[in-house]
Amino acid sequence: MKLYDFFRSSAAYRVRIALNLKGLRCDRLFVNLRTGEDKTDAYRAVNPQGLVPTLALADGRALTQSLAICEYLEECYPNPPLLPPDPAGRARVRALAQLVACDIHPLNNLRVLDYLTGVLGVDEAAKLTWYRHWIAEGFTALEAQLNSSPDTGRFCHGDAPTLADVFLVPQVFNGRRFECDLSPYPTVTRLASAGEELDAFQAAHPDRQPDAV
Amino acid sequence: MKLYDFFRSSAAYRVRIALNLKGLRCDRLFVNLRTGEDKTDAYRAVNPQGLVPTLALADGRALTQSLAICEYLEECYPNPPLLPPDPAGRARVRALAQLVACDIHPLNNLRVLDYLTGVLGVDEAAKLTWYRHWIAEGFTALEAQLNSSPDTGRFCHGDAPTLADVFLVPQVFNGRRFECDLSPYPTVTRLASAGEELDAFQAAHPDRQPDAV
Repeated sequence: MKLYDFFRSSAAYRVRIALNLKGLRCDRLFVNLRTGEDKTDAYRAVNPQGLVPTLALADGRALTQSLAICEYLEECYPNPPLLPPDPAGRARVRALAQLVACDIHPLNNLRVLDYLTGVLGVDEAAKLTWYRHWIAEGFTALEAQLNSSPDTGRFCHGDAPTLADVFLVPQVFNGRRFECDLSPYPTVTRLASAGEELDAFQAAHPDRQPDAV
Repeated sequence: MKLYDFFRSSAAYRVRIALNLKGLRCDRLFVNLRTGEDKTDAYRAVNPQGLVPTLALADGRALTQSLAICEYLEECYPNPPLLPPDPAGRARVRALAQLVACDIHPLNNLRVLDYLTGVLGVDEAAKLTWYRHWIAEGFTALEAQLNSSPDTGRFCHGDAPTLADVFLVPQVFNGRRFECDLSPYPTVTRLASAGEELDAFQAAHPDRQPDAV
Protein backbone atom coordinates (compact mmCIF):
# COMPACT_ATOMS: atom_id res chain seq x y z
CA MET A 1 0.00 0.00 0.00
CA LYS A 2 1.06 3.56 -0.73
CA LEU A 3 -0.46 6.58 0.98
CA TYR A 4 -0.59 9.89 -0.87
CA ASP A 5 -0.35 12.28 2.01
CA PHE A 6 0.02 15.93 3.01
CA PHE A 7 0.93 16.86 6.56
CA ARG A 8 -1.66 19.65 6.85
CA SER A 9 -4.62 17.69 5.41
CA SER A 10 -7.13 16.77 8.11
CA ALA A 11 -8.43 13.89 6.03
CA ALA A 12 -4.91 12.48 5.61
CA TYR A 13 -4.30 12.97 9.36
CA ARG A 14 -7.31 10.70 10.04
CA VAL A 15 -5.92 7.96 7.81
CA ARG A 16 -2.46 8.24 9.38
CA ILE A 17 -4.03 7.71 12.83
CA ALA A 18 -6.03 4.68 11.63
CA LEU A 19 -2.93 3.12 10.02
CA ASN A 20 -0.95 3.67 13.23
CA LEU A 21 -3.70 2.25 15.47
CA LYS A 22 -3.71 -0.87 13.29
CA GLY A 23 0.08 -1.07 13.36
CA LEU A 24 0.25 -0.87 9.56
CA ARG A 25 3.17 0.56 7.65
CA CYS A 26 2.88 1.78 4.12
CA ASP A 27 4.98 3.76 1.68
CA ARG A 28 4.18 7.44 1.70
CA LEU A 29 4.21 9.95 -1.11
CA PHE A 30 3.73 13.60 -0.32
CA VAL A 31 1.46 15.82 -2.39
CA ASN A 32 2.14 19.45 -1.58
CA LEU A 33 -1.22 21.18 -1.76
CA ARG A 34 0.42 24.58 -1.28
CA THR A 35 2.44 24.34 -4.47
CA GLY A 36 -0.44 22.80 -6.42
CA GLU A 37 0.94 19.28 -6.74
CA ASP A 38 -2.66 18.09 -6.32
CA LYS A 39 -3.54 19.76 -9.59
CA THR A 40 -0.85 18.10 -11.72
CA ASP A 41 -1.72 15.56 -14.40
CA ALA A 42 0.51 13.05 -12.61
CA TYR A 43 -1.57 13.23 -9.43
CA ARG A 44 -4.89 13.46 -11.28
CA ALA A 45 -3.99 10.15 -12.91
CA VAL A 46 -3.88 8.68 -9.39
CA ASN A 47 -6.92 10.52 -8.03
CA PRO A 48 -9.12 12.26 -10.60
CA GLN A 49 -10.53 14.52 -7.88
CA GLY A 50 -7.04 15.69 -6.90
CA LEU A 51 -7.72 15.40 -3.17
CA VAL A 52 -5.59 13.75 -0.51
CA PRO A 53 -5.46 11.19 0.94
CA THR A 54 -5.39 8.43 -1.65
CA LEU A 55 -4.51 4.88 -0.65
CA ALA A 56 -3.04 3.02 -3.63
CA LEU A 57 -3.31 -0.76 -3.39
CA ALA A 58 -0.78 -3.27 -4.68
CA ASP A 59 -3.09 -4.18 -7.58
CA GLY A 60 -3.11 -0.57 -8.79
CA ARG A 61 -6.50 0.41 -7.45
CA ALA A 62 -6.67 3.76 -5.72
CA LEU A 63 -8.99 4.30 -2.77
CA THR A 64 -10.27 7.79 -1.99
CA GLN A 65 -12.24 9.51 0.78
CA SER A 66 -10.80 9.15 4.28
CA LEU A 67 -13.82 7.42 5.79
CA ALA A 68 -14.00 4.85 2.97
CA ILE A 69 -10.26 4.22 3.39
CA CYS A 70 -10.69 3.73 7.15
CA GLU A 71 -13.56 1.29 6.58
CA TYR A 72 -11.36 -0.61 4.10
CA LEU A 73 -8.57 -0.85 6.69
CA GLU A 74 -11.11 -2.05 9.26
CA GLU A 75 -12.36 -4.79 6.94
CA CYS A 76 -8.91 -5.99 5.83
CA TYR A 77 -7.08 -5.55 9.14
CA PRO A 78 -9.75 -6.05 11.81
CA ASN A 79 -7.41 -5.97 14.83
CA PRO A 80 -7.49 -3.88 16.87
CA PRO A 81 -11.07 -3.01 15.91
CA LEU A 82 -11.98 0.62 15.30
CA LEU A 83 -15.69 -0.12 15.21
CA PRO A 84 -17.65 -1.86 17.99
CA PRO A 85 -19.18 -5.28 17.31
CA ASP A 86 -22.90 -4.39 17.55
CA PRO A 87 -24.66 -2.69 14.63
CA ALA A 88 -26.19 0.10 16.75
CA GLY A 89 -22.81 0.85 18.31
CA ARG A 90 -21.19 0.85 14.89
CA ALA A 91 -23.86 3.26 13.68
CA ARG A 92 -23.16 5.54 16.64
CA VAL A 93 -19.41 5.59 15.98
CA ARG A 94 -19.93 6.20 12.27
CA ALA A 95 -22.41 9.00 13.00
CA LEU A 96 -19.90 10.74 15.29
CA ALA A 97 -17.21 10.46 12.60
CA GLN A 98 -19.65 11.72 9.97
CA LEU A 99 -20.70 14.65 12.09
CA VAL A 100 -17.08 15.78 11.70
CA ALA A 101 -16.65 14.60 8.11
CA CYS A 102 -19.96 15.90 6.73
CA ASP A 103 -21.15 18.70 9.01
CA ILE A 104 -17.97 20.51 10.07
CA HIS A 105 -14.89 19.87 7.97
CA PRO A 106 -16.31 20.42 4.43
CA LEU A 107 -17.27 23.99 5.30
CA ASN A 108 -13.78 24.92 6.46
CA ASN A 109 -11.79 23.34 3.69
CA LEU A 110 -9.14 25.43 1.94
CA ARG A 111 -11.10 25.46 -1.34
CA VAL A 112 -14.15 26.87 0.47
CA LEU A 113 -12.16 29.54 2.30
CA ASP A 114 -10.57 30.49 -1.03
CA TYR A 115 -14.02 30.87 -2.59
CA LEU A 116 -15.16 33.11 0.26
CA THR A 117 -12.21 35.48 -0.11
CA GLY A 118 -11.57 35.16 -3.84
CA VAL A 119 -15.08 35.09 -5.33
CA LEU A 120 -17.27 36.61 -2.61
CA GLY A 121 -14.70 39.17 -1.50
CA VAL A 122 -15.06 38.26 2.17
CA ASP A 123 -12.35 39.85 4.36
CA GLU A 124 -10.07 37.94 6.74
CA ALA A 125 -12.12 38.76 9.84
CA ALA A 126 -15.37 37.52 8.29
CA LYS A 127 -13.57 34.40 7.01
CA LEU A 128 -12.38 33.63 10.53
CA THR A 129 -15.90 34.20 11.87
CA TRP A 130 -17.21 31.73 9.29
CA TYR A 131 -14.59 29.17 10.30
CA ARG A 132 -15.36 29.48 14.00
CA HIS A 133 -19.11 29.47 13.39
CA TRP A 134 -19.07 26.00 11.83
CA ILE A 135 -16.72 24.65 14.49
CA ALA A 136 -19.06 26.01 17.19
CA GLU A 137 -22.17 24.59 15.49
CA GLY A 138 -20.56 21.20 15.03
CA PHE A 139 -18.94 20.96 18.45
CA THR A 140 -22.19 22.02 20.15
CA ALA A 141 -23.88 19.10 18.39
CA LEU A 142 -21.01 16.71 19.17
CA GLU A 143 -20.94 17.75 22.83
CA ALA A 144 -24.69 17.12 23.09
CA GLN A 145 -24.46 13.75 21.33
CA LEU A 146 -21.57 12.64 23.53
CA ASN A 147 -23.16 13.82 26.78
CA SER A 148 -26.52 12.24 25.99
CA SER A 149 -25.17 8.70 25.62
CA PRO A 150 -24.06 6.18 28.23
CA ASP A 151 -21.72 4.75 25.58
CA THR A 152 -19.30 7.67 25.91
CA GLY A 153 -16.38 6.49 28.00
CA ARG A 154 -12.71 7.24 28.23
CA PHE A 155 -12.93 7.53 24.46
CA CYS A 156 -15.89 8.50 22.27
CA HIS A 157 -17.34 5.00 22.42
CA GLY A 158 -16.26 3.01 25.44
CA ASP A 159 -12.71 2.71 26.67
CA ALA A 160 -10.78 2.06 23.47
CA PRO A 161 -10.32 4.36 20.49
CA THR A 162 -12.66 4.02 17.52
CA LEU A 163 -13.16 5.81 14.22
CA ALA A 164 -15.01 8.51 16.17
CA ASP A 165 -11.75 9.43 17.95
CA VAL A 166 -9.81 9.13 14.69
CA PHE A 167 -12.04 11.85 13.24
CA LEU A 168 -12.41 13.95 16.38
CA VAL A 169 -8.74 14.60 17.13
CA PRO A 170 -7.83 16.27 13.78
CA GLN A 171 -10.95 18.45 14.03
CA VAL A 172 -10.03 19.62 17.53
CA PHE A 173 -6.51 20.30 16.24
CA ASN A 174 -8.05 22.55 13.57
CA GLY A 175 -10.22 24.27 16.14
CA ARG A 176 -7.19 25.13 18.24
CA ARG A 177 -5.18 26.22 15.21
CA PHE A 178 -7.85 28.78 14.34
CA GLU A 179 -8.08 29.82 18.00
CA CYS A 180 -11.69 28.81 18.44
CA ASP A 181 -13.03 29.01 21.98
CA LEU A 182 -13.36 25.35 22.95
CA SER A 183 -14.31 25.96 26.60
CA PRO A 184 -18.04 25.24 25.94
CA TYR A 185 -17.11 21.68 24.87
CA PRO A 186 -15.45 20.00 27.85
CA THR A 187 -16.38 16.48 26.76
CA VAL A 188 -15.11 17.04 23.22
CA THR A 189 -11.79 18.35 24.51
CA ARG A 190 -11.48 15.65 27.18
CA LEU A 191 -11.95 12.93 24.57
CA ALA A 192 -9.55 14.59 22.15
CA SER A 193 -6.92 14.72 24.92
CA ALA A 194 -7.43 11.01 25.63
CA GLY A 195 -6.67 10.26 21.99
CA GLU A 196 -3.72 12.62 21.86
CA GLU A 197 -2.03 10.74 24.69
CA LEU A 198 -1.68 7.65 22.52
CA ASP A 199 1.44 7.04 20.41
CA ALA A 200 -0.66 6.26 17.33
CA PHE A 201 -2.21 9.72 17.41
CA GLN A 202 1.06 11.48 18.31
CA ALA A 203 2.96 9.90 15.43
CA ALA A 204 0.23 11.07 13.02
CA HIS A 205 0.35 14.70 14.18
CA PRO A 206 0.89 17.20 11.33
CA ASP A 207 3.99 18.70 12.91
CA ARG A 208 5.70 15.32 13.05
CA GLN A 209 5.38 14.45 9.35
CA PRO A 210 8.41 14.43 7.03
CA ASP A 211 6.80 17.01 4.74
CA ALA A 212 5.91 19.42 7.57
CA VAL A 213 7.32 22.89 7.02
CA MET B 1 -38.23 1.40 13.63
CA LYS B 2 -39.43 4.97 13.23
CA LEU B 3 -38.02 7.37 10.67
CA TYR B 4 -38.03 11.09 11.39
CA ASP B 5 -38.36 12.45 7.92
CA PHE B 6 -38.87 15.60 5.84
CA PHE B 7 -39.79 15.33 2.18
CA ARG B 8 -37.30 17.99 1.04
CA SER B 9 -34.29 16.70 2.99
CA SER B 10 -31.72 15.09 0.69
CA ALA B 11 -30.33 13.06 3.55
CA ALA B 12 -33.78 11.71 4.40
CA TYR B 13 -34.38 10.99 0.70
CA ARG B 14 -31.29 8.73 0.73
CA VAL B 15 -32.57 6.77 3.72
CA ARG B 16 -36.03 6.41 2.15
CA ILE B 17 -34.43 4.90 -0.97
CA ALA B 18 -32.32 2.48 1.10
CA LEU B 19 -35.35 1.37 3.13
CA ASN B 20 -37.33 0.82 -0.08
CA LEU B 21 -34.53 -1.12 -1.78
CA LYS B 22 -34.40 -3.41 1.26
CA GLY B 23 -38.18 -3.78 1.27
CA LEU B 24 -38.39 -2.41 4.82
CA ARG B 25 -41.36 -0.57 6.22
CA CYS B 26 -41.16 1.70 9.20
CA ASP B 27 -43.33 4.26 10.91
CA ARG B 28 -42.69 7.77 9.74
CA LEU B 29 -42.84 11.02 11.63
CA PHE B 30 -42.49 14.27 9.75
CA VAL B 31 -40.33 17.11 11.00
CA ASN B 32 -41.15 20.28 9.12
CA LEU B 33 -37.87 22.12 8.72
CA ARG B 34 -39.64 25.11 7.23
CA THR B 35 -41.68 25.80 10.34
CA GLY B 36 -38.76 25.07 12.66
CA GLU B 37 -39.98 21.76 14.07
CA ASP B 38 -36.33 20.64 14.00
CA LYS B 39 -35.54 23.29 16.61
CA THR B 40 -38.18 22.26 19.16
CA ASP B 41 -37.22 20.71 22.49
CA ALA B 42 -39.32 17.69 21.58
CA TYR B 43 -37.24 16.95 18.50
CA ARG B 44 -33.94 17.89 20.15
CA ALA B 45 -34.72 15.21 22.74
CA VAL B 46 -34.76 12.71 19.86
CA ASN B 47 -31.78 14.15 17.96
CA PRO B 48 -29.67 16.71 19.85
CA GLN B 49 -28.34 18.05 16.55
CA GLY B 50 -31.86 18.71 15.29
CA LEU B 51 -31.15 17.32 11.82
CA VAL B 52 -33.19 14.83 9.83
CA PRO B 53 -33.19 11.94 9.25
CA THR B 54 -33.19 10.12 12.56
CA LEU B 55 -33.92 6.40 12.72
CA ALA B 56 -35.34 5.50 16.14
CA LEU B 57 -34.91 1.85 17.07
CA ALA B 58 -37.36 -0.24 19.11
CA ASP B 59 -35.01 -0.10 22.12
CA GLY B 60 -35.15 3.69 22.17
CA ARG B 61 -31.78 4.34 20.56
CA ALA B 62 -31.74 7.00 17.87
CA LEU B 63 -29.42 6.69 14.88
CA THR B 64 -28.29 9.81 13.05
CA GLN B 65 -26.36 10.66 9.87
CA SER B 66 -27.77 9.19 6.67
CA LEU B 67 -24.67 7.19 5.75
CA ALA B 68 -24.40 5.64 9.22
CA ILE B 69 -28.11 4.76 9.05
CA CYS B 70 -27.65 3.14 5.61
CA GLU B 71 -24.68 1.12 6.89
CA TYR B 72 -26.83 0.00 9.85
CA LEU B 73 -29.59 -1.14 7.50
CA GLU B 74 -26.98 -2.98 5.40
CA GLU B 75 -25.64 -4.82 8.46
CA CYS B 76 -29.04 -5.75 9.90
CA TYR B 77 -30.87 -6.43 6.63
CA PRO B 78 -28.17 -7.62 4.23
CA ASN B 79 -30.48 -8.59 1.36
CA PRO B 80 -30.48 -7.23 -1.23
CA PRO B 81 -26.93 -5.96 -0.61
CA LEU B 82 -26.19 -2.29 -1.18
CA LEU B 83 -22.43 -2.81 -0.87
CA PRO B 84 -20.41 -5.26 -3.00
CA PRO B 85 -18.75 -8.25 -1.31
CA ASP B 86 -15.07 -7.32 -1.83
CA PRO B 87 -13.37 -4.72 0.42
CA ALA B 88 -11.95 -2.68 -2.48
CA GLY B 89 -15.35 -2.59 -4.17
CA ARG B 90 -16.98 -1.58 -0.91
CA ALA B 91 -14.41 1.18 -0.54
CA ARG B 92 -15.20 2.40 -4.05
CA VAL B 93 -18.96 2.51 -3.41
CA ARG B 94 -18.47 4.26 -0.08
CA ALA B 95 -16.11 6.79 -1.66
CA LEU B 96 -18.68 7.64 -4.35
CA ALA B 97 -21.37 8.09 -1.70
CA GLN B 98 -19.00 10.21 0.41
CA LEU B 99 -18.05 12.37 -2.54
CA VAL B 100 -21.71 13.43 -2.49
CA ALA B 101 -22.13 13.41 1.29
CA CYS B 102 -18.87 15.20 2.19
CA ASP B 103 -17.79 17.20 -0.85
CA ILE B 104 -21.04 18.46 -2.41
CA HIS B 105 -24.09 18.39 -0.19
CA PRO B 106 -22.72 20.06 2.99
CA LEU B 107 -21.89 23.21 1.05
CA ASN B 108 -25.41 23.61 -0.31
CA ASN B 109 -27.36 22.89 2.81
CA LEU B 110 -30.10 25.30 3.85
CA ARG B 111 -28.17 26.44 6.95
CA VAL B 112 -25.16 27.33 4.77
CA LEU B 113 -27.24 29.22 2.21
CA ASP B 114 -28.90 31.09 5.09
CA TYR B 115 -25.47 32.09 6.44
CA LEU B 116 -24.41 33.36 3.02
CA THR B 117 -27.45 35.61 2.65
CA GLY B 118 -28.09 36.43 6.31
CA VAL B 119 -24.59 36.97 7.71
CA LEU B 120 -22.46 37.66 4.66
CA GLY B 121 -25.12 39.64 2.81
CA VAL B 122 -24.70 37.65 -0.40
CA ASP B 123 -27.43 38.37 -2.95
CA GLU B 124 -29.63 35.75 -4.62
CA ALA B 125 -27.60 35.64 -7.82
CA ALA B 126 -24.31 35.06 -5.98
CA LYS B 127 -25.99 32.44 -3.78
CA LEU B 128 -27.13 30.57 -6.88
CA THR B 129 -23.62 30.84 -8.36
CA TRP B 130 -22.23 29.33 -5.13
CA TYR B 131 -24.76 26.49 -5.29
CA ARG B 132 -23.97 25.67 -8.89
CA HIS B 133 -20.22 26.00 -8.34
CA TRP B 134 -20.13 23.17 -5.79
CA ILE B 135 -22.41 20.99 -7.89
CA ALA B 136 -20.11 21.54 -10.87
CA GLU B 137 -16.94 20.84 -8.85
CA GLY B 138 -18.43 17.68 -7.35
CA PHE B 139 -20.01 16.34 -10.52
CA THR B 140 -16.80 16.95 -12.48
CA ALA B 141 -15.00 14.78 -9.91
CA LEU B 142 -17.77 12.16 -9.90
CA GLU B 143 -17.86 12.00 -13.70
CA ALA B 144 -14.09 11.48 -13.78
CA GLN B 145 -14.19 8.81 -11.06
CA LEU B 146 -17.02 6.96 -12.78
CA ASN B 147 -15.47 7.15 -16.24
CA SER B 148 -12.05 6.01 -15.03
CA SER B 149 -13.26 2.71 -13.57
CA PRO B 150 -14.27 -0.54 -15.27
CA ASP B 151 -16.57 -1.17 -12.29
CA THR B 152 -19.08 1.42 -13.50
CA GLY B 153 -21.95 -0.47 -15.11
CA ARG B 154 -25.64 0.04 -15.53
CA PHE B 155 -25.45 1.49 -12.04
CA CYS B 156 -22.55 3.20 -10.26
CA HIS B 157 -20.96 -0.13 -9.34
CA GLY B 158 -21.94 -2.99 -11.59
CA ASP B 159 -25.46 -3.79 -12.64
CA ALA B 160 -27.39 -3.49 -9.39
CA PRO B 161 -27.97 -0.41 -7.26
CA THR B 162 -25.63 0.28 -4.34
CA LEU B 163 -25.23 3.03 -1.76
CA ALA B 164 -23.46 5.06 -4.46
CA ASP B 165 -26.75 5.25 -6.42
CA VAL B 166 -28.70 5.89 -3.22
CA PHE B 167 -26.59 9.03 -2.70
CA LEU B 168 -26.29 10.06 -6.34
CA VAL B 169 -29.97 10.30 -7.23
CA PRO B 170 -30.97 12.88 -4.55
CA GLN B 171 -27.94 15.00 -5.49
CA VAL B 172 -28.88 14.99 -9.17
CA PHE B 173 -32.43 15.90 -8.14
CA ASN B 174 -31.00 18.93 -6.31
CA GLY B 175 -28.87 19.86 -9.30
CA ARG B 176 -31.92 19.89 -11.54
CA ARG B 177 -34.00 21.78 -8.99
CA PHE B 178 -31.45 24.59 -8.98
CA GLU B 179 -31.23 24.46 -12.78
CA CYS B 180 -27.56 23.50 -12.90
CA ASP B 181 -26.21 22.65 -16.34
CA LEU B 182 -25.74 18.88 -16.13
CA SER B 183 -24.78 18.38 -19.78
CA PRO B 184 -21.04 18.03 -18.96
CA TYR B 185 -21.82 14.96 -16.83
CA PRO B 186 -23.40 12.36 -19.14
CA THR B 187 -22.34 9.40 -17.00
CA VAL B 188 -23.65 10.98 -13.82
CA THR B 189 -27.02 11.69 -15.42
CA ARG B 190 -27.20 8.28 -17.13
CA LEU B 191 -26.64 6.54 -13.80
CA ALA B 192 -29.13 8.77 -11.99
CA SER B 193 -31.73 7.92 -14.66
CA ALA B 194 -31.07 4.21 -14.19
CA GLY B 195 -31.83 4.60 -10.50
CA GLU B 196 -34.88 6.76 -11.08
CA GLU B 197 -36.47 4.03 -13.17
CA LEU B 198 -36.73 1.74 -10.15
CA ASP B 199 -39.81 1.70 -7.95
CA ALA B 200 -37.70 1.98 -4.78
CA PHE B 201 -36.31 5.31 -5.95
CA GLN B 202 -39.62 6.57 -7.32
CA ALA B 203 -41.48 5.89 -4.09
CA ALA B 204 -38.82 7.86 -2.18
CA HIS B 205 -39.08 10.95 -4.39
CA PRO B 206 -39.72 14.18 -2.46
CA ASP B 207 -42.89 15.00 -4.41
CA ARG B 208 -44.45 11.67 -3.49
CA GLN B 209 -44.12 12.00 0.30
CA PRO B 210 -47.16 12.58 2.53
CA ASP B 211 -45.67 15.81 3.89
CA ALA B 212 -44.87 17.26 0.45
CA VAL B 213 -46.41 20.66 -0.09
